[in-house]
Amino acid sequence: MKENPIGVFDSGIGGLTVLKEIVRALPGEDTVYLGDTARVPYGTKSRETVARYATEDAGFLRGHNVKIVVAACNTASAFGVDELRKNLSVPVTGVITPGAEAAAAVTKSGKVGVIGTEGTIRSKAYSKALKAIDAGIQVFEAACPLFVPLVEEGLLDDPITDLAVSRYLGGLKAEGVDTLVLGCTHYPLLKGAIKKFMGPSTALIDSAEATASEVLRILSEKDLCRKDSQNPSHKFFVTDSPERFAQVGRAFFGDRLDSPETVRLGCA
Amino acid sequence: MKENPIGVFDSGIGGLTVLKEIVRALPGEDTVYLGDTARVPYGTKSRETVARYATEDAGFLRGHNVKIVVAACNTASAFGVDELRKNLSVPVTGVITPGAEAAAAVTKSGKVGVIGTEGTIRSKAYSKALKAIDAGIQVFEAACPLFVPLVEEGLLDDPITDLAVSRYLGGLKAEGVDTLVLGCTHYPLLKGAIKKFMGPSTALIDSAEATASEVLRILSEKDLCRKDSQNPSHKFFVTDSPERFAQVGRAFFGDRLDSPETVRLGCA
Repeated sequence: MKENPIGVFDSGIGGLTVLKEIVRALPGEDTVYLGDTARVPYGTKSRETVARYATEDAGFLRGHNVKIVVAACNTASAFGVDELRKNLSVPVTGVITPGAEAAAAVTKSGKVGVIGTEGTIRSKAYSKALKAIDAGIQVFEAACPLFVPLVEEGLLDDPITDLAVSRYLGGLKAEGVDTLVLGCTHYPLLKGAIKKFMGPSTALIDSAEATASEVLRILSEKDLCRKDSQNPSHKFFVTDSPERFAQVGRAFFGDRLDSPETVRLGCA
Repeated sequence: MKENPIGVFDSGIGGLTVLKEIVRALPGEDTVYLGDTARVPYGTKSRETVARYATEDAGFLRGHNVKIVVAACNTASAFGVDELRKNLSVPVTGVITPGAEAAAAVTKSGKVGVIGTEGTIRSKAYSKALKAIDAGIQVFEAACPLFVPLVEEGLLDDPITDLAVSRYLGGLKAEGVDTLVLGCTHYPLLKGAIKKFMGPSTALIDSAEATASEVLRILSEKDLCRKDSQNPSHKFFVTDSPERFAQVGRAFFGDRLDSPETVRLGCA
C-alpha cells in the first residue's frame, strides 16, 4: 500500500497547483493526476452534476490503485467530497477544510474573506468549515467568475485583471478582512494582482499548500508514506485531447509536466 | 414531416440567440432546443471531443423527430457539421456558412474580420468558407476567450468589457476591416461595446439572423414549412440542472423561455 501512488483530480489544469505542492511536501511519492478537461469547468455547474463527475474522477483514480484521493478542485470539494468519503475505501481529502483551517489559524481580526467560483461560493462550504472551527469568525464571500478565464488566457499582470480584481474584491476590502482564502486552484496565479489591490496587511491563503500538508498528515498518521524516494513517477491523464493541457499546464506545474494520456470517463 | 419541429442545439445558452431569430423568421414552427450545459463550453475543447458531443446532441434531437438540425454553436459548426451531414437523414445546417455568405455580401473593401472562440478560430472554418465564396476576400481572425464569460456575467456595458474589446479587436481595426463576423452565439450581446470600438462604418454580421434565413430557405426548398401556425410549442432541454439556464437564458431568448427539462446524453 505504501508504494501506491497519490491520486489527484481536478476539473482541468488548476489542480496542478495542488499537485505541485504535494510533490514538494512528499518528493518520494508516485502520483496520478486526472484533469477532466472534456467537461471543464465545474464552477458553473450544479451540485448534482459536479458530484457525479467527482465520483467518476475518483473511480478512475482508484482504478490506478491510489492510496489517497485528493479532490484538488474547490467546486468538487464543496459538492462531492462527502459522497466520495462514503463510497471509497481509501482516505479522501478536498481542499476546503485544509484551506479553512489555515485561514482560521492566521486571522487576527476574525474577519475572513473567501473568493471562489460561482459553485463554491453558492455552496457556502468555506463559511461552514470556518464556522465549525470557530463560530466567532465572520466570513465574507465573493464569486469571481472571470478569474479562471483570465488565468487561462495568461493575463496575470494586466489592466483587465486589475479591473476585475478591484470589482470583485472591493466589497471584501471595505469589510476589512485581514485574511483572504484563494478558494479556487487557479487563483494562486493571481496572487500578485490580488496582493497589489488588497495591500500587504491581508494574508492570502493558498489551499494548495494547506492541502499538501493535510495529505502529508493523513499519510503519516496511517503510516502510508513511502520510504524510498528513487525516481518517483508522475502520470497525467485528461479526458480531452492532450495539447492544450500540456501547453497551459506548464504555467501551473513547471517543465516536469509530462504529456498526458487521454481517457474516457463513463461514456462521457 | 411538415408538422415536425425544428431542432436546435448548442453547448449551452448562446444558441438561444439563433433560436430567437428562427422563431422570428418562422413563427408557426414547433422547436426543440438542447443546451449541453453539463459540458459547456465547447470553444476551448478539441475537434474530436466537440465532434463527438455534436453527434450526441444531434442524436438527441433526432429522437424528437426534428425535420432539420441546426448546430447553433460556432465551434460545433466548425468541427462537427460535416460528420452530422454524413450521418443524419434530415437536413443539417451550422452557423458558419450562413454567416460567411452574409459577410461576403456586405463587404466592400474585401477585408473581413472574424471573431470567435479559440476552437472556431483555430479551425479556420470562416476563412475557408469566405475564400470558397470569393477567393479575393482577405480574412483577419481573432479569438476572444473572455467574451463568453463576460456575457455570462452580464457585463455587457462595462469598462472591463471595453478594455477586452479594444485588446482583442485592435488588430482587426488596424487592418481596416469593413465587416466583422460575430462568430460566436454569445457575441451579439456585445454588439454595443463592439460597435462603440469599431465605429459606425464597420458592419457587424450576426450569424443568428443569417442562419434563420438559411433554415427558412432549406425548409421552403424542401417544402417542409408548416402551414398552420396556431400555438407553436417550444421545448427546452439541458444536460445540467435547469436553474442557471432558466435564469441566464432570458437575456438571450426573452420571457417566453420555458423551464427546461434535464436529460442525460450518452452516459455523460
